[in-house]
Amino acid sequence: MTDGLVLSIDGMGGDNAPDIVVEGVNIAAQRSPGVRFLLHGDAVRLNALLERYAAAKAASVVEHADKAIGMEIKAAQAMRQGKGSSLWNAVEAVKDGRANAIVSAGNTGAFMAISMFRLRTMEGVHRPALTTRWPNAKGGYTVLLDVGANVEANAEQLVEFAIMGEAFARAVNGTARPSVALLNVGAEEQKGHEEIRAAAQLIRDTGVDLNFNGFVEGDDIAKGTVDVVVTDGFTGNIALKTGEGTARLVGQFLREALTGGLMAKLGALIAYPALKKLSKRMDPGTFNGALFLGLNGLVVKSHGSANGAGFAAAIGVAEKMARSSYREEIAHNLVRLASAHAETAKVGDAG
Amino acid sequence: MTDGLVLSIDGMGGDNAPDIVVEGVNIAAQRSPGVRFLLHGDAVRLNALLERYAAAKAASVVEHADKAIGMEIKAAQAMRQGKGSSLWNAVEAVKDGRANAIVSAGNTGAFMAISMFRLRTMEGVHRPALTTRWPNAKGGYTVLLDVGANVEANAEQLVEFAIMGEAFARAVNGTARPSVALLNVGAEEQKGHEEIRAAAQLIRDTGVDLNFNGFVEGDDIAKGTVDVVVTDGFTGNIALKTGEGTARLVGQFLREALTGGLMAKLGALIAYPALKKLSKRMDPGTFNGALFLGLNGLVVKSHGSANGAGFAAAIGVAEKMARSSYREEIAHNLVRLASAHAETAKVGDAG
Repeated sequence: MTDGLVLSIDGMGGDNAPDIVVEGVNIAAQRSPGVRFLLHGDAVRLNALLERYAAAKAASVVEHADKAIGMEIKAAQAMRQGKGSSLWNAVEAVKDGRANAIVSAGNTGAFMAISMFRLRTMEGVHRPALTTRWPNAKGGYTVLLDVGANVEANAEQLVEFAIMGEAFARAVNGTARPSVALLNVGAEEQKGHEEIRAAAQLIRDTGVDLNFNGFVEGDDIAKGTVDVVVTDGFTGNIALKTGEGTARLVGQFLREALTGGLMAKLGALIAYPALKKLSKRMDPGTFNGALFLGLNGLVVKSHGSANGAGFAAAIGVAEKMARSSYREEIAHNLVRLASAHAETAKVGDAG
Repeated sequence: MTDGLVLSIDGMGGDNAPDIVVEGVNIAAQRSPGVRFLLHGDAVRLNALLERYAAAKAASVVEHADKAIGMEIKAAQAMRQGKGSSLWNAVEAVKDGRANAIVSAGNTGAFMAISMFRLRTMEGVHRPALTTRWPNAKGGYTVLLDVGANVEANAEQLVEFAIMGEAFARAVNGTARPSVALLNVGAEEQKGHEEIRAAAQLIRDTGVDLNFNGFVEGDDIAKGTVDVVVTDGFTGNIALKTGEGTARLVGQFLREALTGGLMAKLGALIAYPALKKLSKRMDPGTFNGALFLGLNGLVVKSHGSANGAGFAAAIGVAEKMARSSYREEIAHNLVRLASAHAETAKVGDAG
């Protein structure tokens, strides 16, 4: 009894692997009975864990890998020594067409490098983008990309990110026509880096099929002003980490405030269920799953410190992506971008 | 009875001016009895307010200005039409040597443009930097610059920002030897934009007198890993606004959690004093005062939505800066940077 969807799982990636991986697979298997899992990693350890999780056991095939890539290994080293690791094999299963998507909570740099090397970028995509979701004030999630795959991005690459991010938001957040904007230091047309202004112009000129909203600023990410915020990997990485750092700081201040005296402690005790729910709402685990978009294969990165529920959330993202028409939607818009470019080049030649 | 320190105040700048300005001056005048204030703006309104604040009245001289620059006016327009406004006159008083520093809660773009135009940059400084303080997990404040004065910064300008930020941290936070780092996407030497790597090299090569710690990432700002974080105005502006947006979002989630049921409300009521203190700790008003560093004159920007206490905090920053040896410390390091540059140029000529 399968619905044909196969997910390739790095059983050994993450701070608490393989335990949370198998636990996550179990939650996902209960939630989506038709899905099958290829579990890559130490067969002895994985099989022992599967004995404790019936749903995971029924839905999984273990594929033994002799080694695992550590969280602290550099990407270049992982490329040289990674062959035969659980991460490498998990990627390979998608390349071979035996699985529809990969999920790993392992080393981000190694995961990106190996995926990029083995799967290559889709036709029409110059560079892939690391894509994340950010809880927002409207109760939904803002899609932000690139958050670290490329240090720089030119105008055309930013437009490619916009196209990929839009299709992702539709597939995963279920928004029919996601609004898209470029991250900038002001909403005015004349502001910001030249590439950003050129990207806005390119979107308007090429007739790319996007609900484009121009520029937004840093605080618009958490506000949820638009569904998709597009930037280069340097700026996106700093925005993401600054936001995470600030959220943790406020959490620390809150804990300090609520343990700072008898009345505060009593109040916190009475409000405990509400505070617990808040803490869950802020936990990256609940909106887990960063995507590495633009490759020939779906590549989902779970947070390294995810628990079982968090890893299951990342699997959920992979599932939604695999069942969506994301790939066709991107291809459709990339063709428009490419033909507009060819048009411009022709005009240039004539001039 | 004065200690010679004179502060030039834009009485009409900010969302709640002139009321909160005069209230802020009153708090500052009570705290620092020796300081005098030049209050620029609508004399009728300012004098009426001063009747309600005895300490402010005793310490202030009102200088009438016919107009005020609105919060929504573009910088270019402010430059054309701003002459004779309260903001323009406040800057002019420092240029004329009648005051030691300017404080305004008004239009940031207009304030930067007019200050830059009238005061010019210090010798050895290519571009000024907008500088802010960020509460951190260590209970102190991380200095972050540039947060928006320049969209781009080359290696030499980043080093100038580092020099200015370090002296600022010493003057305002009281850290004897502040640690300094460049904002980047990873701690490794080979990562990030070329200008950032070049700036790190320049600091090491030129013998600039800094406690330099290499690179930090976005989450290190809130962690307080170093005292001063240096970046270009594009990245800094996005980091600042993303952080502010995230803090507001967490605040909203907290309010929603604590009003979401009877027990939650009861707990919040009992813990109210602690939550009130937390809210104050997170309020930009309590660490108010962004500096526009690198000009011939001290230029302090208060948050546009500051209340009286917040405006008084910005005045406090101006006071500390005016009483510090910030200017001499910067000059000392800028000379080292310049002479190292001259040295390099000579070597280049010889080769």
